[in-house]
Amino acid sequence: MILAAGKGTRMHSGKPKVLHALAGRPILQHVLDTARKLNPSKIIVIYGFGGDAVPQALPADDITWVQQAEQLGTGHAMQQALPHLEADARTLILLGDVPLLAVESCQSLLAEQAALALLTVHKHDPAGYGRIVREQASVQAIVEHKDATEAQRAIQEVNTGIMAADNAWLAQWLAQLDNRNAQQEYYLTDIVALAVADGQAVAATQSDDEWQVTGINSKQDLATLERVYQQRYAARLLAQGVTLADPARIDVRGTLTAGRDVEIDVGCVFEGEVTLADNVRIGSYCVIRNASIGTGTVLAAYTHIDDASLAEACKIGPYARLRPGTNLADHTHVGNFVELKNAQVDSGSKINHLSYIGDATVGKDVNIGAGTITCNYDGVNKSRTVIEDKAFIGSDTQLVAPVTVKAGATIAAGTTVTQDAPAEQLTMSRVRQFTIENWKRPEKVKK
Amino acid sequence: MILAAGKGTRMHSGKPKVLHALAGRPILQHVLDTARKLNPSKIIVIYGFGGDAVPQALPADDITWVQQAEQLGTGHAMQQALPHLEADARTLILLGDVPLLAVESCQSLLAEQAALALLTVHKHDPAGYGRIVREQASVQAIVEHKDATEAQRAIQEVNTGIMAADNAWLAQWLAQLDNRNAQQEYYLTDIVALAVADGQAVAATQSDDEWQVTGINSKQDLATLERVYQQRYAARLLAQGVTLADPARIDVRGTLTAGRDVEIDVGCVFEGEVTLADNVRIGSYCVIRNASIGTGTVLAAYTHIDDASLAEACKIGPYARLRPGTNLADHTHVGNFVELKNAQVDSGSKINHLSYIGDATVGKDVNIGAGTITCNYDGVNKSRTVIEDKAFIGSDTQLVAPVTVKAGATIAAGTTVTQDAPAEQLTMSRVRQFTIENWKRPEKVKK
Amino acid sequence: MILAAGKGTRMHSGKPKVLHALAGRPILQHVLDTARKLNPSKIIVIYGFGGDAVPQALPADDITWVQQAEQLGTGHAMQQALPHLEADARTLILLGDVPLLAVESCQSLLAEQAALALLTVHKHDPAGYGRIVREQASVQAIVEHKDATEAQRAIQEVNTGIMAADNAWLAQWLAQLDNRNAQQEYYLTDIVALAVADGQAVAATQSDDEWQVTGINSKQDLATLERVYQQRYAARLLAQGVTLADPARIDVRGTLTAGRDVEIDVGCVFEGEVTLADNVRIGSYCVIRNASIGTGTVLAAYTHIDDASLAEACKIGPYARLRPGTNLADHTHVGNFVELKNAQVDSGSKINHLSYIGDATVGKDVNIGAGTITCNYDGVNKSRTVIEDKAFIGSDTQLVAPVTVKAGATIAAGTTVTQDAPAEQLTMSRVRQFTIENWKRPEKVKK
Repeated sequence: MILAAGKGTRMHSGKPKVLHALAGRPILQHVLDTARKLNPSKIIVIYGFGGDAVPQALPADDITWVQQAEQLGTGHAMQQALPHLEADARTLILLGDVPLLAVESCQSLLAEQAALALLTVHKHDPAGYGRIVREQASVQAIVEHKDATEAQRAIQEVNTGIMAADNAWLAQWLAQLDNRNAQQEYYLTDIVALAVADGQAVAATQSDDEWQVTGINSKQDLATLERVYQQRYAARLLAQGVTLADPARIDVRGTLTAGRDVEIDVGCVFEGEVTLADNVRIGSYCVIRNASIGTGTVLAAYTHIDDASLAEACKIGPYARLRPGTNLADHTHVGNFVELKNAQVDSGSKINHLSYIGDATVGKDVNIGAGTITCNYDGVNKSRTVIEDKAFIGSDTQLVAPVTVKAGATIAAGTTVTQDAPAEQLTMSRVRQFTIENWKRPEKVKK
Repeated sequence: MILAAGKGTRMHSGKPKVLHALAGRPILQHVLDTARKLNPSKIIVIYGFGGDAVPQALPADDITWVQQAEQLGTGHAMQQALPHLEADARTLILLGDVPLLAVESCQSLLAEQAALALLTVHKHDPAGYGRIVREQASVQAIVEHKDATEAQRAIQEVNTGIMAADNAWLAQWLAQLDNRNAQQEYYLTDIVALAVADGQAVAATQSDDEWQVTGINSKQDLATLERVYQQRYAARLLAQGVTLADPARIDVRGTLTAGRDVEIDVGCVFEGEVTLADNVRIGSYCVIRNASIGTGTVLAAYTHIDDASLAEACKIGPYARLRPGTNLADHTHVGNFVELKNAQVDSGSKINHLSYIGDATVGKDVNIGAGTITCNYDGVNKSRTVIEDKAFIGSDTQLVAPVTVKAGATIAAGTTVTQDAPAEQLTMSRVRQFTIENWKRPEKVKK
Repeated sequence: MILAAGKGTRMHSGKPKVLHALAGRPILQHVLDTARKLNPSKIIVIYGFGGDAVPQALPADDITWVQQAEQLGTGHAMQQALPHLEADARTLILLGDVPLLAVESCQSLLAEQAALALLTVHKHDPAGYGRIVREQASVQAIVEHKDATEAQRAIQEVNTGIMAADNAWLAQWLAQLDNRNAQQEYYLTDIVALAVADGQAVAATQSDDEWQVTGINSKQDLATLERVYQQRYAARLLAQGVTLADPARIDVRGTLTAGRDVEIDVGCVFEGEVTLADNVRIGSYCVIRNASIGTGTVLAAYTHIDDASLAEACKIGPYARLRPGTNLADHTHVGNFVELKNAQVDSGSKINHLSYIGDATVGKDVNIGAGTITCNYDGVNKSRTVIEDKAFIGSDTQLVAPVTVKAGATIAAGTTVTQDAPAEQLTMSRVRQFTIENWKRPEKVKK
């Protein structure tokens, strides 16, 4: 069960709180991913604020969505979900705005045998939190900060709101909740008192990792947990042997899989699924999304990649942009101020300077000069350019697609290629250079 | 009164200390801004080192500039300003190298009724600072660290140098200062002892925010306060609901105004006045100066903007540069390696690749192909290019200004447009493509 | 003597541990640099893992390389080196994976008169380290954590492994080492017990700087020490008076020499030897390698420089790339999306937009228009372009090298320059612009 109905007023956003992104995914997605790793018989998500925005943003067959139309507290939220609970099962109650909870913590909590088990946390500064009052191992009460005695305030074990309970008991306790409090809300935590009153032992698993149980209520919280997430991701990369120039300056929003002897310079951002093979080196300030990068390939600074695959020993950048559909074979070079889009480039080819190659098939060992442009768009249709093996494209050439430059052809600088260029020959469109004698340079116009 | 005469030897600079920039503005400017918010009857700034550099750098009608020709201490500085003080007013004495002091702290200090009131601060480690010795609420003395007893050294309340005083008393005490000390300087803080000797209560307002009263004496101090400033600015943005990927990696040097659901990725730098409307998204490593960006507009990574306005739902970058005078209407697209300067682009137009569009008026729904260049400069004069609605500019076109491409015109790839292109027609300058048979590629020249 | 034989299993790398780069140089290089500053009569490096990789990576005439074929412990390593030790000298034993050790610490250690002197360090949390048990000033034993009594565990002075010893004693003690321990290794630290047994005083110099004696055993360690190194480098730059927008976001991998009133914005990376003269300003996210930058020159954001020299008052960037062999004279301007390679540009010349100028000599006061390309490569040979003083190169010009544009020549926009352009005249290759009437735009092809 995941409680995800809150608005998150302090987010100052039109979007439900649990849909804000942490490390590139909705906060709630993190909780769902954790829940799925537990192989539950059922996942119930209680949503509320924002109407159907939450279920629409995270469609999934394995989720039972329960709407809490009115925001009457966590106990009320649970009551809405009661009909969906299997009588003889056990429910783990997670919070949709607590994204960093580890699977292991859930497993520890579920391993508790008591009818009710709480996840608690040791807080250095517990002020403001509900204290866990124990007698021997068993929890006697959760005392809110404002109601706590001096002695109770010294307790550093506090409630997290995450718990596990036998469904039979849970149904019984939820039915007994009332809203006789200042907020007139039904509080889920009141079931602890009900359990104690029923003579049931209330177990508690204490975590010493505050971040795992920290909820997000503001953009400050979101930024803080984002940094914790990134710091931990970086630590895992380091532990695997990745060289990071600065673990505080790498952002991974998705999955970064790295081989051996991979080096990542400062300030890089990875999104989606990115795979770096052995000996890949990523220069500073690269932004890479959904890419597979082969062994020994080197990206210079400010390389921007989106949905592309690069084979081995390529040299890319600086200031190179590889857009969706770009596939580079081994030993290709893409230099500065070059944009590739839906371009398949075979091995050993070079596009080193100031070019736009879109919707193109480029053969092996092709050399594309500076300022080359594939004119792939006539205003309504896109067409393809084919450049065969060993062609040499002179600088400032325009390739008006659909067009083919045959194998071994040479295109002279400044040519507008409108028809196929034959193999092995020199093709051009050029007029004689001439000089106008006695020409005077323009003079400054007075304004 | 703002004391701003110091050289700041440890800055190792030819520039007076108070003119170094914190968050893009001179240190002294921060103090002046704070002073102005108090609506004082007069602002006096005492300057010294660097001659007229300080008054010249910060010209303002509301400032009375007083030069302290010799550097004989803070008391001596105040003596220079005495003739400018109104007899029956109260003077707040600020320090020109203490930029983070809050208006609220000044107001608290001014609210004190005593003839002399000090701003003090609680320091965790007070070593080296003048301790505030109190008897009941009233200050008895400021004891310098080197002169302090063991008991006095345990005092954590220290002097900041900031104070407020009735002008009549101030004049009297300043006249009594002497320079019989190791430095042979006149110390302003000596007026505390004079006030006590006169039987005047000396009030003190204690701050618990060290940064507010921290002075800048070195580039290390400057860098430290810069980070404090930026951290606090980021916290304010977060509190307003802005999403920051990393609050430690944003720099605001001026004013950043953001609407609802604005997202700012890592490493962005904002200078001058920047306004971001609702749902604006700023990619990583953008540098933006003096810009207004409309609702839903998205900037990709490495976008560089200086003095431009962008309307709604534009898509910009990556690697786009918008220079002064650029105005983009709704739904315009500017892509990679594109430079716009003094260009007004109407709605729905696209300039997606490798172009320079300067001194140009671009209509609605225009498509500008890759490699298009406005030849706006003949070596002495700048001329304008006009591209009317729905024109299609083929790749690698040069538009030799002044020139107009009429509505709906199509320019073929590679054209040099030297005369106006008629509406709705295809205009070009092109020669037939030809092939040289039996041509041999160049051979490697042996050197 | 430098012990550098370890594999560094936790680095997860095919490369010997000491060859990983810290601040751009191999870890071992840092130790060698420190050793050389002590002017030793001999430098012996004991290498092992990785075969000859270490000596090959760091060739030097002044190093005696000793291979430790089997990894049998530090004592065994030292035994291999014994034949190379001069009988009446003193040996300083450094660790090849401890890169931040300061020369001053080595000198303090060498100044100890005892036959054996240890470098120790005060550790806040000494758990896991060998404690230094002293009697009066003299060290009695190093007690490993697991063997330590409660009282000994309270000792915060721990062993670093760095030591100095008289060679005669060292030879004697090394000969007595045994490997009767769990790892069956010969431990160098066992010589402390042997010295004590011989009645020799064992001196110890205690450092309070943990980072100086921290060894690198993992990529986490490497990243941590990289940050310490960079933080300290930044602090030195600040102390010299350099303005750093954020000391936590600058990386220097080599030597950065800066004049007076130099300003460096966030995120810059410096590699190799970089010299910045007075009043140089470096914009955000510049990457600069081996460069000399003259007084008052300003680099805008994202400038990328490799092996270039820039004279005074140049304006570069944003998005400018200066490749090896670029030399810019005073007052040159290089703008956005411009690549220079092996180009010598004389004073006052401007290359402001989207150009590739390679293998070129550019005179004074030349104006190179947007989209200009030097066609310096015919597929096999590189040729030079010469552009003489005051030439004006129109936009989108191709200069097919070898070719010369003479002084004062003007090249019209879109020209392909294949022959030398005469001085002071207008040269072009252009055809008349024409319009095709009744032309219809392409229609969308249905697929």
